[in-house]
Amino acid sequence: MVIVMSSEATPAQVAEVVRRVEAEGGQAFVSRGVARVIIGVVGEVERVASLNLAALPGVARVKRVNSGYMLVSRENHTARSVVEVGGVPIGPDSITLIAGPCAVETPEQTLAAARMARVAGATLLRGGAYKPRTSPYAFQGLGVEGLRILADVRAETGLPVVTEVVAARDVDVVAEHADMLQVGTRNMQNFQLLQAVGDAGKPVMLKRGMTATIEEWLLAAEYIAQRGNLDIVLCERGIRTYETATRNTLDVAAVPVVQHLSHLPVIVDPSHSGGRRDLVIPLSRAGLAAGADGLIVDVHPHPETALCDGPQALVGADLVELSRAVAVFSSVMGRDQRFERLAG
Amino acid sequence: MVIVMSSEATPAQVAEVVRRVEAEGGQAFVSRGVARVIIGVVGEVERVASLNLAALPGVARVKRVNSGYMLVSRENHTARSVVEVGGVPIGPDSITLIAGPCAVETPEQTLAAARMARVAGATLLRGGAYKPRTSPYAFQGLGVEGLRILADVRAETGLPVVTEVVAARDVDVVAEHADMLQVGTRNMQNFQLLQAVGDAGKPVMLKRGMTATIEEWLLAAEYIAQRGNLDIVLCERGIRTYETATRNTLDVAAVPVVQHLSHLPVIVDPSHSGGRRDLVIPLSRAGLAAGADGLIVDVHPHPETALCDGPQALVGADLVELSRAVAVFSSVMGRDQRFERLAG
Amino acid sequence: MVIVMSSEATPAQVAEVVRRVEAEGGQAFVSRGVARVIIGVVGEVERVASLNLAALPGVARVKRVNSGYMLVSRENHTARSVVEVGGVPIGPDSITLIAGPCAVETPEQTLAAARMARVAGATLLRGGAYKPRTSPYAFQGLGVEGLRILADVRAETGLPVVTEVVAARDVDVVAEHADMLQVGTRNMQNFQLLQAVGDAGKPVMLKRGMTATIEEWLLAAEYIAQRGNLDIVLCERGIRTYETATRNTLDVAAVPVVQHLSHLPVIVDPSHSGGRRDLVIPLSRAGLAAGADGLIVDVHPHPETALCDGPQALVGADLVELSRAVAVFSSVMGRDQRFERLAG
Amino acid sequence: MVIVMSSEATPAQVAEVVRRVEAEGGQAFVSRGVARVIIGVVGEVERVASLNLAALPGVARVKRVNSGYMLVSRENHTARSVVEVGGVPIGPDSITLIAGPCAVETPEQTLAAARMARVAGATLLRGGAYKPRTSPYAFQGLGVEGLRILADVRAETGLPVVTEVVAARDVDVVAEHADMLQVGTRNMQNFQLLQAVGDAGKPVMLKRGMTATIEEWLLAAEYIAQRGNLDIVLCERGIRTYETATRNTLDVAAVPVVQHLSHLPVIVDPSHSGGRRDLVIPLSRAGLAAGADGLIVDVHPHPETALCDGPQALVGADLVELSRAVAVFSSVMGRDQRFERLAG
Repeated sequence: MVIVMSSEATPAQVAEVVRRVEAEGGQAFVSRGVARVIIGVVGEVERVASLNLAALPGVARVKRVNSGYMLVSRENHTARSVVEVGGVPIGPDSITLIAGPCAVETPEQTLAAARMARVAGATLLRGGAYKPRTSPYAFQGLGVEGLRILADVRAETGLPVVTEVVAARDVDVVAEHADMLQVGTRNMQNFQLLQAVGDAGKPVMLKRGMTATIEEWLLAAEYIAQRGNLDIVLCERGIRTYETATRNTLDVAAVPVVQHLSHLPVIVDPSHSGGRRDLVIPLSRAGLAAGADGLIVDVHPHPETALCDGPQALVGADLVELSRAVAVFSSVMGRDQRFERLAG
Repeated sequence: MVIVMSSEATPAQVAEVVRRVEAEGGQAFVSRGVARVIIGVVGEVERVASLNLAALPGVARVKRVNSGYMLVSRENHTARSVVEVGGVPIGPDSITLIAGPCAVETPEQTLAAARMARVAGATLLRGGAYKPRTSPYAFQGLGVEGLRILADVRAETGLPVVTEVVAARDVDVVAEHADMLQVGTRNMQNFQLLQAVGDAGKPVMLKRGMTATIEEWLLAAEYIAQRGNLDIVLCERGIRTYETATRNTLDVAAVPVVQHLSHLPVIVDPSHSGGRRDLVIPLSRAGLAAGADGLIVDVHPHPETALCDGPQALVGADLVELSRAVAVFSSVMGRDQRFERLAG
Repeated sequence: MVIVMSSEATPAQVAEVVRRVEAEGGQAFVSRGVARVIIGVVGEVERVASLNLAALPGVARVKRVNSGYMLVSRENHTARSVVEVGGVPIGPDSITLIAGPCAVETPEQTLAAARMARVAGATLLRGGAYKPRTSPYAFQGLGVEGLRILADVRAETGLPVVTEVVAARDVDVVAEHADMLQVGTRNMQNFQLLQAVGDAGKPVMLKRGMTATIEEWLLAAEYIAQRGNLDIVLCERGIRTYETATRNTLDVAAVPVVQHLSHLPVIVDPSHSGGRRDLVIPLSRAGLAAGADGLIVDVHPHPETALCDGPQALVGADLVELSRAVAVFSSVMGRDQRFERLAG
Repeated sequence: MVIVMSSEATPAQVAEVVRRVEAEGGQAFVSRGVARVIIGVVGEVERVASLNLAALPGVARVKRVNSGYMLVSRENHTARSVVEVGGVPIGPDSITLIAGPCAVETPEQTLAAARMARVAGATLLRGGAYKPRTSPYAFQGLGVEGLRILADVRAETGLPVVTEVVAARDVDVVAEHADMLQVGTRNMQNFQLLQAVGDAGKPVMLKRGMTATIEEWLLAAEYIAQRGNLDIVLCERGIRTYETATRNTLDVAAVPVVQHLSHLPVIVDPSHSGGRRDLVIPLSRAGLAAGADGLIVDVHPHPETALCDGPQALVGADLVELSRAVAVFSSVMGRDQRFERLAG
């Protein structure tokens, strides 16, 4: 922590800052310059931060230096982590494709989508039984009935299930049916939900809030980690900007930035970031080229009648193209390709 | 709804769009121009929207015309609403000041802050017992103990209590102690929480999500209204932009824009938008001058030791200045001043 | 300047940073903590900054402390400045209204708009002869012919003229006809233009870039000031955000923030920020309530046929309402009202 | 163009809209629905747009359908263009690497950087003689002296030169020395400059404004094209968002979106978007994987003493890694590799 004193700060004001820092067990180092005084603080940063020194007379600014996410930080855990989901690894040695319908609508549609996912090379099935929708008049998902459909389709296809949970009260029932719990972009700072999935004993996929900074995202992951669950996969899904040509702006730089700051795996969602079917393959390639550990992609047997996000779902020849992209980038990026093993 | 066909769309493609619209009970009006065809749709817009016509061959774009928020819209309810909180009105004929500490810390601090709030002219007390914090290592609030302190301070001062609820499971206990339930910026799209407060039978203050559009905000209010609760007050609290000189950017235009679109009262939070004590009074004045129906302001007896958001809390002479601003703008904007009556 | 070393920095790496700082004439103060070392630098900051210390081994981060705008900063010039435009003051003791048509179209339209401006209480006339337009197919202004019309209307009405200049090569001809040169939002970082208007010997209105930070805005003003011209008025005209309900988002907090950082006057443009006629009055009031030193407003005798920005131009009864707002806020904010004197 | 009437519009108001549209030579198609009337307009859209119909009584909204960029649009020019710069093609069949120092500082530094550029596989040399800098106290470039250095280095290395021009008055002298004129992000809407480079008879690289929409960017290109110059290369260089972990946010989706809308080549600047040396290679790969036609990258022999943007310059082993990325992606994306031919 660094405390910048104003240019008119008196020696007594400087001394008072030092006194308060030391009273909280911190160490204060005073740098006196021609124009102003800077005080470096080390030690009990959280306790010193709670002093609210910025409000003291003579203080111009207070800056934090340390990150607040210790458990998910790479500082104390330099090796990048692998998270296993129903036996499928997500991490630095592989490229993992998760695919499926945005929403579970019927058993037939879900099974058809799961088969499409396999064609595309997916080793995990996505599908929403609980859908957080901006409008209360939009389709909200099938709930428990949807979870059962997903479990049936897993039995049929062998694909472990990734599905969203939108409320702390639903965590138990979702954890019972799913292999990985997804926390969506609108819930990234639903702290009760984060704690509940942290307690659930299942791997978690944490999507970035649509206007969250990378720091806030990692702090949200820290909420889960604090409950003893480090099986967290981060998912970059586009952020909100002024540009309206795409649904969101894929922040592809977030992939290497997060991998530098945290040991957790990072995947990319090319479907929700672009919001357009014709952008899914280019954004998939871009995400993998930036170093992503995997992708999560919408597929649907009949996009034109999909109850949710049809305009971005892949279908038909797209699947082969996606499969080829995953294969090529597994090789280019020096990663083996999980689905071959599984399929083999 | 308007469907814009691409310039190469064939007559058969146009006919297919019309067929699907009519099959869902909608009416389609085809406008043939030199360069392209435009189809206007009226009728069952939600059902037609679910057709996902944008995915059909020949369709270039689909645009929605009607809003999705019927209950909170001003279209069907032209008179602006008044919401009563423990007997205190918030609406077009008054300027209501809500003030108190960001977080409830101790009985003494809360009572002192409530007395400061009265000095500033407040008729409602704010104070957080449950605090959603970005970092899991920050102070998270006193919980039920904090609710009891608020109830005691209400008994002592006569000020009805506005307090935040951060999880659906806490709605009952908060509703038992508080006069108004606040949904915070991070929970604006926590739909289970919106439905729960909609069921609770208490007035609700809905803060704007820090990156929510005005349309998304009104759709979030619609979630509450759908449960039969129209006692909703909207609170503009600043949005996230690229500017870092202030904590958030107060979108002061949102006040008249929302009042044009919705019958619900709108208040402004000058404390969380600016994030700086020296901006609270200017932003309070700006909000009232734009037509806000009230303010919600942080006050604290000892900002330098506050456990939450100390740098923005008012103290001392600020209170008198705030009180004067509320009085002057009540007169300038042609509104009487609630607290005078109450104080009288 | 503050240099934060990484946690693994060696003593030799720290010593090297100190050596380089001192070789450039700076002073380095080393703070050794348990976890890391922080080095405070004072002295020749610009020269030290050019060392690019962030690239040295062991350095984690480099932070600047001082602002780069010395001439427009309030640090060395605590009294707020008054800028005179053709005898009309803009500054802390008055509220100055500038009004007129977005674009000069004909002598009749310009004269009619100038008379409307007087009705609204304006003491300065705005009007564009050179229009920077996003599309090359949109009306680009009358050029020199437009300047002549403005000069004629000034002779007729007595209102000094504020008009935009969009290219360095036009500065001389515009300065010959106008009383104040306006630099528009798209040219805020057109540095040649800034220098040219700095040399022109006329007051300058500098609009904020639509995505400029406040710091960049003040640095742009510093370009003008460096040429010896301190007659600069800053104009907040809305910033670009994700919100689409308004043309731009009026950053009303920029008014007090800039007044805290700089001695220059600050005015608000409620027409271009909202982009909607019905928002002009509420945003005018909000700007004045936040402490703005004036307003610049579009008026047009026939908004429905305006060649530029018709949807936001005031007309008819709006003018009286604007005049009333200016009068009321001159009184509320403790400022006298220039136009009364002029009119008297 | 689509005109949405308000729900209370009278038949006379609808008729008046139709009359005005037809008086301007447009065709109006009236769609009458249960709730409201929608009018589709085709024909002379620009003239109809100038009517400002949004201001008429009964009109709720006016929406544009056609793009305003005819010359750079792909609608009338489906084949993607190739732009030749000093004999080096930029277009759909190649990946072209442009590299060099951010700023020309000395002949030695420029020559050293050019040799580094060749090692990295570059076939074009970048380097700034005129630098637009946010602060007036920062290094502003060597001007004509810098242009001469670039020309000398071209003679020595055979690399054609790409350099920025920041003012219309400098276009002639820059065009005399350079092979391609660069318009920087701060000048994307400096319309006089766009017209001047359009007249200069040299290829132009147009960087995206840091807060420009894709539509505004293409309209800026249209300004150049209107002067008869279609040798334009677009450069995505990151946009301004709320995220501060990177200097800008690379909008990688802009590559396929622009290629869909326009026939012009699109390249990516991984140096200025990320602003960090460690992000240059990942963002280069991401840009190429999204389909970019080339890259423009900062290299510098001594980043730690660079006068401009040192923290993002590549050096040493980075160059080989970049060269390998270009080679691999040329193959993966089915493009041959220009520099091999040149080097061969």
